[in-house]
Amino acid sequence: MIKSNRTEQTIQQIKVSVDCIIFGFNDNKLELLLIKKKDEPEKGKWSLIGGFVGFDEDLDEAANRILSDLSGLQDIYMEQIKTFGKVNRCSFDRVISSTYSAMILKSSYTEDQIEKYNAQWFPITEVPELIFDHNDMVDIAIKRMRRRVRNFPIAFNLLPSKFTLPQLQALYEGILDETLDKRNFRRKVSQMNYLVKLEEKDMTESRRGAFLYRFDEAWYKKEKHFNL
Amino acid sequence: MIKSNRTEQTIQQIKVSVDCIIFGFNDNKLELLLIKKKDEPEKGKWSLIGGFVGFDEDLDEAANRILSDLSGLQDIYMEQIKTFGKVNRCSFDRVISSTYSAMILKSSYTEDQIEKYNAQWFPITEVPELIFDHNDMVDIAIKRMRRRVRNFPIAFNLLPSKFTLPQLQALYEGILDETLDKRNFRRKVSQMNYLVKLEEKDMTESRRGAFLYRFDEAWYKKEKHFNL
Repeated sequence: MIKSNRTEQTIQQIKVSVDCIIFGFNDNKLELLLIKKKDEPEKGKWSLIGGFVGFDEDLDEAANRILSDLSGLQDIYMEQIKTFGKVNRCSFDRVISSTYSAMILKSSYTEDQIEKYNAQWFPITEVPELIFDHNDMVDIAIKRMRRRVRNFPIAFNLLPSKFTLPQLQALYEGILDETLDKRNFRRKVSQMNYLVKLEEKDMTESRRGAFLYRFDEAWYKKEKHFNL
Repeated sequence: MIKSNRTEQTIQQIKVSVDCIIFGFNDNKLELLLIKKKDEPEKGKWSLIGGFVGFDEDLDEAANRILSDLSGLQDIYMEQIKTFGKVNRCSFDRVISSTYSAMILKSSYTEDQIEKYNAQWFPITEVPELIFDHNDMVDIAIKRMRRRVRNFPIAFNLLPSKFTLPQLQALYEGILDETLDKRNFRRKVSQMNYLVKLEEKDMTESRRGAFLYRFDEAWYKKEKHFNL
């Protein structure tokens, strides 16, 4: 018995986990994918998509493996957000957790998957109480994502390959949760050299139609992202 | 013997460390603080300021404790940058490491401390080969820091409380390692509402003198940091 206790002490080490924060864009609104815990001690509670990092897997790999194992989502490029390491953040273990995040089209996650994985989408204005410090994780991911959206063209993969400026503005407004001044928005957009105006028009929304645009990734990569 | 081997296996867990990336600003140039490892197996090699996180300390606390223990630097606000978690990043152990970074005035770190802690400043254009993936850590921290400097007034604590626009421009040029167009720079600066022009002039650099400015933190906090 004494021996076993000593072993327990020896292995009193910090555990490492990953939590995935998946935002879904739907009808110009942002939602958050959560799963209901199946096991004690957190059974029945809402949680981010998280699990422990294996001894033999890279941290980034672990994030993708855990996302796939627990939600079925595959081939999602996630960005590392922040590592949470308060001593008491988890109620029963010392765990530090790296958060990863991605923004997808809600429609790319099927109803079958939702059911299979005990998952559910929540509007980000109505996120329920989550386990541990997961609500803090979500808050920080939302802030980071909004900041990035203002500075990088990371939201373009949520649009069709050809889109109108009203569509683009609605996308930004949905993500940022604020109304943008149309003239101001157009002025900013006109400075984005990686937005290419096409000769085609979309005629579905108005009689005059709206010019279609496409995102030129090559142009974007050539440019410097920031200009002081 | 068998028992001991089993114990070894049981405790084959990931270790957690922190690495601190301290940039020093001096004579309008950025430098990086490194320490020479004293112990095997990395003895004599250059390294970031890093160590293991204790079981009973928050990750952020660990970063500050390690920075203080290994460099003597205290009360430095560091920002978490990124967590590095490749399986083989450390040659003899499985360690994931969270990086933290700060920018200080080089002059605030004394020669006595440099000697006591086996430390040395290197121009960031002349960073030597570092242990593990520390060179990658530095590269990412530099990029992040430059991006932040373009978007947030994080560099103002490196200036005297009253400063001229040429001083401000030299600071930005030093950090970004590029020459900025003076007119463009002034135009951008004029949009920073948190820069307050004073009635005083600095007369040391030219006969006409240059108006002094101060940074108004309260104004900055009221404002939104980004404008789409």
